[in-house]
Amino acid sequence: MLPLLLLLTPCAEPPVAADLVVHNGKVWTGDAHQPEAQAVAVWRDRIFKVGTDAEVKTLVGRDTKLIDLKGGRLVPGFYDSHVHFLSGGRSLSSVDLKDAKDEAEFGKRLGAFDQNTSRDRWIVGGLWDHDRTFGGALPTAATVDKFVKDRPVFIRRYDGHMGLANSAALKLAGVTADTPDPPGGVIYRLADGKTPSGVLKDNAIALVDRHIPEPTDEEILEGVLAALKAAAALGVTSVQDLDGNGPETRRKLFRTYQRLARDGKLTCRIDLRWPIALYKDLSNTGAAADFGSDFVRIGGVKGFMDGSLGSSTAKMFDPYTSDAKNTGVYVTPTKLMQSYVRGADADGLNVCVHAIGDQANAVLLDIFAEVAKQNGARDRRFRIEHAQHVRPEDYKRFAELGVIASMQPYHVIDDGRWAEGRIGAKRCASSYAYRSLLDAGAKLAFGSDWPVAPLDPLPGIDAAVNRRPLDGGHPDGWFPEQRITVAEAVRAYTLGSAFAGFQEKDRGTITVGKLADFVLLSRDIFAAAEKDRIADTKVTMTVVSGKVVFERK
Amino acid sequence: MLPLLLLLTPCAEPPVAADLVVHNGKVWTGDAHQPEAQAVAVWRDRIFKVGTDAEVKTLVGRDTKLIDLKGGRLVPGFYDSHVHFLSGGRSLSSVDLKDAKDEAEFGKRLGAFDQNTSRDRWIVGGLWDHDRTFGGALPTAATVDKFVKDRPVFIRRYDGHMGLANSAALKLAGVTADTPDPPGGVIYRLADGKTPSGVLKDNAIALVDRHIPEPTDEEILEGVLAALKAAAALGVTSVQDLDGNGPETRRKLFRTYQRLARDGKLTCRIDLRWPIALYKDLSNTGAAADFGSDFVRIGGVKGFMDGSLGSSTAKMFDPYTSDAKNTGVYVTPTKLMQSYVRGADADGLNVCVHAIGDQANAVLLDIFAEVAKQNGARDRRFRIEHAQHVRPEDYKRFAELGVIASMQPYHVIDDGRWAEGRIGAKRCASSYAYRSLLDAGAKLAFGSDWPVAPLDPLPGIDAAVNRRPLDGGHPDGWFPEQRITVAEAVRAYTLGSAFAGFQEKDRGTITVGKLADFVLLSRDIFAAAEKDRIADTKVTMTVVSGKVVFERK
Repeated sequence: MLPLLLLLTPCAEPPVAADLVVHNGKVWTGDAHQPEAQAVAVWRDRIFKVGTDAEVKTLVGRDTKLIDLKGGRLVPGFYDSHVHFLSGGRSLSSVDLKDAKDEAEFGKRLGAFDQNTSRDRWIVGGLWDHDRTFGGALPTAATVDKFVKDRPVFIRRYDGHMGLANSAALKLAGVTADTPDPPGGVIYRLADGKTPSGVLKDNAIALVDRHIPEPTDEEILEGVLAALKAAAALGVTSVQDLDGNGPETRRKLFRTYQRLARDGKLTCRIDLRWPIALYKDLSNTGAAADFGSDFVRIGGVKGFMDGSLGSSTAKMFDPYTSDAKNTGVYVTPTKLMQSYVRGADADGLNVCVHAIGDQANAVLLDIFAEVAKQNGARDRRFRIEHAQHVRPEDYKRFAELGVIASMQPYHVIDDGRWAEGRIGAKRCASSYAYRSLLDAGAKLAFGSDWPVAPLDPLPGIDAAVNRRPLDGGHPDGWFPEQRITVAEAVRAYTLGSAFAGFQEKDRGTITVGKLADFVLLSRDIFAAAEKDRIADTKVTMTVVSGKVVFERK
Repeated sequence: MLPLLLLLTPCAEPPVAADLVVHNGKVWTGDAHQPEAQAVAVWRDRIFKVGTDAEVKTLVGRDTKLIDLKGGRLVPGFYDSHVHFLSGGRSLSSVDLKDAKDEAEFGKRLGAFDQNTSRDRWIVGGLWDHDRTFGGALPTAATVDKFVKDRPVFIRRYDGHMGLANSAALKLAGVTADTPDPPGGVIYRLADGKTPSGVLKDNAIALVDRHIPEPTDEEILEGVLAALKAAAALGVTSVQDLDGNGPETRRKLFRTYQRLARDGKLTCRIDLRWPIALYKDLSNTGAAADFGSDFVRIGGVKGFMDGSLGSSTAKMFDPYTSDAKNTGVYVTPTKLMQSYVRGADADGLNVCVHAIGDQANAVLLDIFAEVAKQNGARDRRFRIEHAQHVRPEDYKRFAELGVIASMQPYHVIDDGRWAEGRIGAKRCASSYAYRSLLDAGAKLAFGSDWPVAPLDPLPGIDAAVNRRPLDGGHPDGWFPEQRITVAEAVRAYTLGSAFAGFQEKDRGTITVGKLADFVLLSRDIFAAAEKDRIADTKVTMTVVSGKVVFERK
């Protein structure tokens, strides 16, 4: 902090006045050079001064917008490294099944939504949770038929890795007893071993999905606007959008982002990623990864090694507890994944790949190591999305290979309710292993995986710090040795994601020269007394590019 | 200018210090709100203060770079709205035939270049000028064979609309007496009316061009670096690159720009355009026009209505003076052009189209009017590139339709030597009609068309102001009623090009908040005494993004 001595006299109108000054706050900058401050001045879209109230107030001019933070805690804008932004936005107006406590409630919600939705549409989304709603048993087409029979329904498990179709949907899609399981996917069958039950896993989801009409331009815009509104209220100022849409939808989504940016309406910065299988299309345009503006850009490509824990399709070394024959699935054959990664990397694209199971992670680390050797040294920052179950011997490989673990801490408290039932306690000890990864020197980037989990970063930060599953089952923390500090969690959710996106030079901390994105919280989450209430913290104000995009009334 | 009164006392170290201050200058800002100033302060990449030395010096801190402009004239960085950047860069290391005064000199240069170039390459470029070198008669393959026989030579007339092949090149390309003229192109023939003479016009150029190996990655990088060096020394801080390369070269060029930008080596900002025939490829990626960063972006698409005056292929209402049967050619059939323009515009792409002849211009204005009606109102800023020969009744249509005339004033003094010989004095009176267009309310954007003309903006500005052809033929100006003022010319070469590229909010004038691109000149080109010596003015210093990228030793 500069001593007041240096200013001989305060100036009246400063030579250049800040556009915005926020003062009287407790600013956690995330910047080791100046970790705490009281005030921040903004000029245009950039942070221009960080310091004491006295220092920063020298930049107040006639037209400067002044905001009193009232002693509140200011942090850098949250950067969510893993969302499905359009799905998330559309889920806000979809049927909401996630916390239905039993079949009756499930049916009631589905029925009500059916009544209120025009008949020409499929019912999709839902984000059901069979552990919570059906006591762990999988529902069937017949279950859904009880409530909605006369139009197609294809609702997803909240992790996206299972879909549940009613009979109308199965019929429209032509999925029958004669339909074989596609590679990397499973068509659940009834007791006869043939009749589809209604549940489809991973690559089998496409058998029905492809019959669902793509969203219209209007639905895409509505979804994005809803997502932007949600993000602003939750202090999320940047996201890496890992997409998940069909090619036509992705194209329209990308255009929508650009159009909104052009009109100054994009209140959350977007980094959009393409499916790795189509990396050549991206290469062929000539547009490299990171091409774009401060508001919208092409981030790179994304692939999937395996499925998910909840669907028992994450690829593990050893079988699932419930089924000695099941070690999960590779949704992309490993040799094909290697060729994609090699090709995309050779073309200079940034690569991130989903790997949940311990074998998927180990094999993916092998692939990254091999490709780095084949293609030669460069600042490449491979990412593993989720890195959920990792063998202890593999922690250090993240650090050695410079592979970023892009993780979503809310999963700890969500999956923590039943994970041991899937893979046993021993493997859970090296799952969601934030402490071990950080101690091994790995870099973390945090995100939400919205809509698989809520977009709100604060429950995620609470989860990383306290590890208390949602059902109250482990009040002292589930594998508490994996807990990390609040500062480590916030860092991963700000600078960590920026670094993962090659943007650490202009985001992720409150530093002079960086983009003016920051968030005022209702609680000082760094205070020891608040440690157990981080999830109850709300965002009071969100600033993006020096403009207030949200204020809690 | 703010009175000194407002500052009670000068501050020692300012609260935020400028990164760069240039002072003691005569700043022509181009900004009506503050047209003249002495000094400019820069913070990061932006202009942060413009005013008197005293005002701006309040922003000088310990680490501020200070540059004394020594009373020199500072202008906004030149924005060239029409270059072929890679061709230009490569022309700097190609054989230089442009001002060869006769066949002997032509041959000497060609021969010397042939001796010094590895045998596995074609000889290309050259930029020959048959009016200057061959007294207006077209050379032939036999002409070139005298000097280079044993490897293919395919050299272009400097306007790019004619190519001259030696026999080896014609043979390699399989262009023979039996090869018909392609639509929109002409294979010049010898007296027998069949044997190709060696000269190919417009769409016939491709018959040989496609056999020339595409430049290597290294050649592309070398070409771009040479172009950047040239631009920096000439005060050109932004360009709209209208390309002209094959698809693979364009892709590599685009990637080269991005790579250089990423490494902080792109000292000239690039807006790259795609051929209009491929507009769907651009639309399909989802990348809109204007997608990109402050340094590199996708600008839109470019088409060609007709050929050029020099090649007698510009499409005129009435015949060329020398040939009652020739009214020029449409290189793109007009119905096809209309469908391209309509489709590209409907997809939100920015469209610019080359039209040189008066009929090409009139028909293109019709197309723009029709498309605007069909697709509905939007801020679209259609551009006509060159708008070289325009009927007086069409001047106001530019203004009415909001069509920008993107013109290259150097052509006045280059073509002015022989234009009347092509189309007669009457049509020349409404050619390169800057005054008439401005008076009719049209917007101008200036550029060079490098390498068709030199990249240096100052001879271009001189040409627009004085209109004195290079051969000294019209000392009082060729059609002097079309002269414009220095301020109008500089405006077209700065803000005009920015507006043409939808970038007037952050370029084109020296205004607080805009990008810190500006240029120090060796003469005050706005002074009456300097009016006749504008072309002799040199650039003393060029600043891009607040960094000095060129200083004359």
